[in-house]
Amino acid sequence: MSELTKEVKFMLRAIQLSIENVESGKGGPFAAVIVKNGEIISTGVNEVTSNNDPTAHAEVVAIRKACEKLNTHQLEGCEIYCSCEPCPMCLGAIYWARPSKIYYANTKEDAAAIGFDDHFIYTEMAMPVQKRKLPTFQLLRDEALEAFEKWGKSTIKIKY
Amino acid sequence: MSELTKEVKFMLRAIQLSIENVESGKGGPFAAVIVKNGEIISTGVNEVTSNNDPTAHAEVVAIRKACEKLNTHQLEGCEIYCSCEPCPMCLGAIYWARPSKIYYANTKEDAAAIGFDDHFIYTEMAMPVQKRKLPTFQLLRDEALEAFEKWGKSTIKIKY
Repeated sequence: MSELTKEVKFMLRAIQLSIENVESGKGGPFAAVIVKNGEIISTGVNEVTSNNDPTAHAEVVAIRKACEKLNTHQLEGCEIYCSCEPCPMCLGAIYWARPSKIYYANTKEDAAAIGFDDHFIYTEMAMPVQKRKLPTFQLLRDEALEAFEKWGKSTIKIKY
Repeated sequence: MSELTKEVKFMLRAIQLSIENVESGKGGPFAAVIVKNGEIISTGVNEVTSNNDPTAHAEVVAIRKACEKLNTHQLEGCEIYCSCEPCPMCLGAIYWARPSKIYYANTKEDAAAIGFDDHFIYTEMAMPVQKRKLPTFQLLRDEALEAFEKWGKSTIKIKY
C-alpha cells in the first residue's frame, strides 16, 4: 500500500465496504469513510432496508458515527470519502457537518443507471414549492414565528 | 379543538414542540410531526447540539422514529408537519421516505433571518462540483463501479 496516495487508500476502503454491503445483502452499493489527520474516524454503509431507516445512507451513517466518536456536531478538519457522489440528503448532511473536503468515486449518473435516481429530488428542489409533484402546503406561519422569536431572545441557546 | 381542521391541529402540535425545544435549551427552534390516518405516528425536535449529531434535524428524527414504529423504510400515506420549511438535507430525507404530503409553517427566509441559512447549501448544490466552495474531488470511478455491477447481478438485494 505504500505506493498509493492516502486519498487512494481511503477511497479503496470505501469501495471495498460498498462491495461487501452488496455481497452481504445488508443494503445498497454505497459506503463512506471519514478521515481526520490521516486516520479513519468512522465508516458507514447503506442500511436503509436492513435498519428500516430511509435516512441511513452511507454518508449519514458515517457522519453520525464520527460525531459520536469525536464528541462534536461539527467535522472541521475531516475528509469524507464517498463510494458514490452524494445524493441531496447526504450532500446537505455533509454541508451541515462541515468537513474540509469531499472525495467521491461513482457519479450520480452511474447511480441512476442502476436504479438510484436522485435526479427527481434535485428537480423538485429547484422548483417553487407550489409546483412540486409532492404536494406541499404552508400554514400557520404567524403562530410558528413565536419559536424563532424565543430563539432570538434565548440566553441558553447553543448556536450551530 | 373541534373547530380546528386536522391540519391546523397537527401543525399547532409541531409549533408547540418547536417552542418547547427552545425553552428547554435542547436544540434549535424546529419540530416535526408525522401523521398517518389522522393519528400522530411520531414527533421529532432538533437535537443537533444535545445529541452531537448534525443530521438530527427535526424532520430526520421524526422520519427515523416513524419508520421504526411502522417497521418500514417508506412512509406512503403519511403526512409530515414541519414547523419550518425543510432544509436541503431534510427535504432529501422526506423525498426518500416518500410521504404523501408536506405541511410547513415558517419559511426558509424566516429561518435565515435568525441565523439558520441554508441558502449557501442550495447555492452549492446547484453549482458544478468543480466550482463549489467545499472542495470536492472525484477518483477511482472504474474501481467503484464493481459495487454497482454486483448490485445489478445480486439475487439477494432488496430494492428501495
